[in-house]
Amino acid sequence: MYKIVLMRHGESTWNLENRFTGWTDVDLTEKGAAEARHAGKLLKDAGFNFDLAYTSVLKRAIRTLWITLDEMDLMWIPVKHDWRLNERHYGALQGLNKAETAAQYGDEQVLVWRRSYDTPPNPLDANDSRASYNDPRYAKLDRAQIPLTECLKDTVARVMPAWDEEIAPAIRAGRQIIVSAHGNSLRALIKMLDGISDKDIVGLNVPNGQPLVYELDANLKPIKSYYLGDADAIAAAMNAVASQGKSK
Amino acid sequence: MYKIVLMRHGESTWNLENRFTGWTDVDLTEKGAAEARHAGKLLKDAGFNFDLAYTSVLKRAIRTLWITLDEMDLMWIPVKHDWRLNERHYGALQGLNKAETAAQYGDEQVLVWRRSYDTPPNPLDANDSRASYNDPRYAKLDRAQIPLTECLKDTVARVMPAWDEEIAPAIRAGRQIIVSAHGNSLRALIKMLDGISDKDIVGLNVPNGQPLVYELDANLKPIKSYYLGDADAIAAAMNAVASQGKSK
Repeated sequence: MYKIVLMRHGESTWNLENRFTGWTDVDLTEKGAAEARHAGKLLKDAGFNFDLAYTSVLKRAIRTLWITLDEMDLMWIPVKHDWRLNERHYGALQGLNKAETAAQYGDEQVLVWRRSYDTPPNPLDANDSRASYNDPRYAKLDRAQIPLTECLKDTVARVMPAWDEEIAPAIRAGRQIIVSAHGNSLRALIKMLDGISDKDIVGLNVPNGQPLVYELDANLKPIKSYYLGDADAIAAAMNAVASQGKSK
Repeated sequence: MYKIVLMRHGESTWNLENRFTGWTDVDLTEKGAAEARHAGKLLKDAGFNFDLAYTSVLKRAIRTLWITLDEMDLMWIPVKHDWRLNERHYGALQGLNKAETAAQYGDEQVLVWRRSYDTPPNPLDANDSRASYNDPRYAKLDRAQIPLTECLKDTVARVMPAWDEEIAPAIRAGRQIIVSAHGNSLRALIKMLDGISDKDIVGLNVPNGQPLVYELDANLKPIKSYYLGDADAIAAAMNAVASQGKSK
């Protein structure tokens, strides 16, 4: 039997400001850092151990991982940074306040952008300063691999090769893995692991900073999965995510 | 022309307590963390950029690197942890206070242990709780690779393959590299780069938290090397290291 732990980064400054973040490289808040420390303690107290970590190239996920590994006295394990684990690219919405956007376009339109499986927001203009073409993180990618917007379907399409080529083989090789990533890159993994439909996955909220444990069989099919923390805290964290897109 | 930056970790808790540290996994002090932040600022202001980092499996070097990369907005670059970059193993002296040890054995004997090229301190007993056999960091090594003591010559012997097999090929491949390591693993690299004799290398002090830049030719021979910081600060930091082993 195999095991893997998935975790969404702790609260970021733009979670707090209720802005669409996407590939913008915002940092954790103090609360987000505290969530990561708490996650590390939970994992340590539950006897988890890791010998390999995956994360995105965005600092809110990296710092969440660093703090978690520090708490577990595992700063020395290998960490692989993979751009394919980045948050969904939010296109022209990146940087906009969710409530203001909802007030302007209506809750319904924002919910379509946030929660439709295959409708992306308007793309960034290629010359927009928010586009990632000149970011050294992505210097080795083909320009066509760097999105200007994404729907969840697009995110799933780029996350899956990271699972198939990197993470799944490492699990099969017996590595004990933690993945520190983002709401939508984790949705992609959860969708695949649990066989969730396109329609249902958009309603699934991944709480910030809560370790999600999957126990997997020899074919990497889930035997069971569970959040490690206190059930009330998890429910509250999920509700916080669900209410982010509302105008009030 | 190639370039590489070498840096010794910032002040550790046992630097402050004047204890022989070796492979003991002590953390940075506040001052050590501040040194790392300063180093990151110096590197950033001087226009340095990195796309690969090497460090040991000891947290004082890893945290120094993390803080430096954070300051440079480079948290996302790949980091390779290599046990061969660890500090010299200090054998039975690990954990002992340097001044007390000097008062007991005499300044001269302590200077022999600290600064002889080929005389190791007494080894740890294999059953000593300070031995590293059960440390998960070293679980993949043969028992014979895990030292119970080392002289500088031994440290040089295990550092060099890390240079030859990992770091030098990466430099030749054009990678821009920072190495965050320890006083004696860096002595090993400096000895090799600058062709310093066995006799002279033991008198060379590597200051904590000061970026040391090497510009290298096509054969990886130094064209020039220099510390990045203020000359007075470097001299003071070197003197602080040199005086650590004295009884008063």
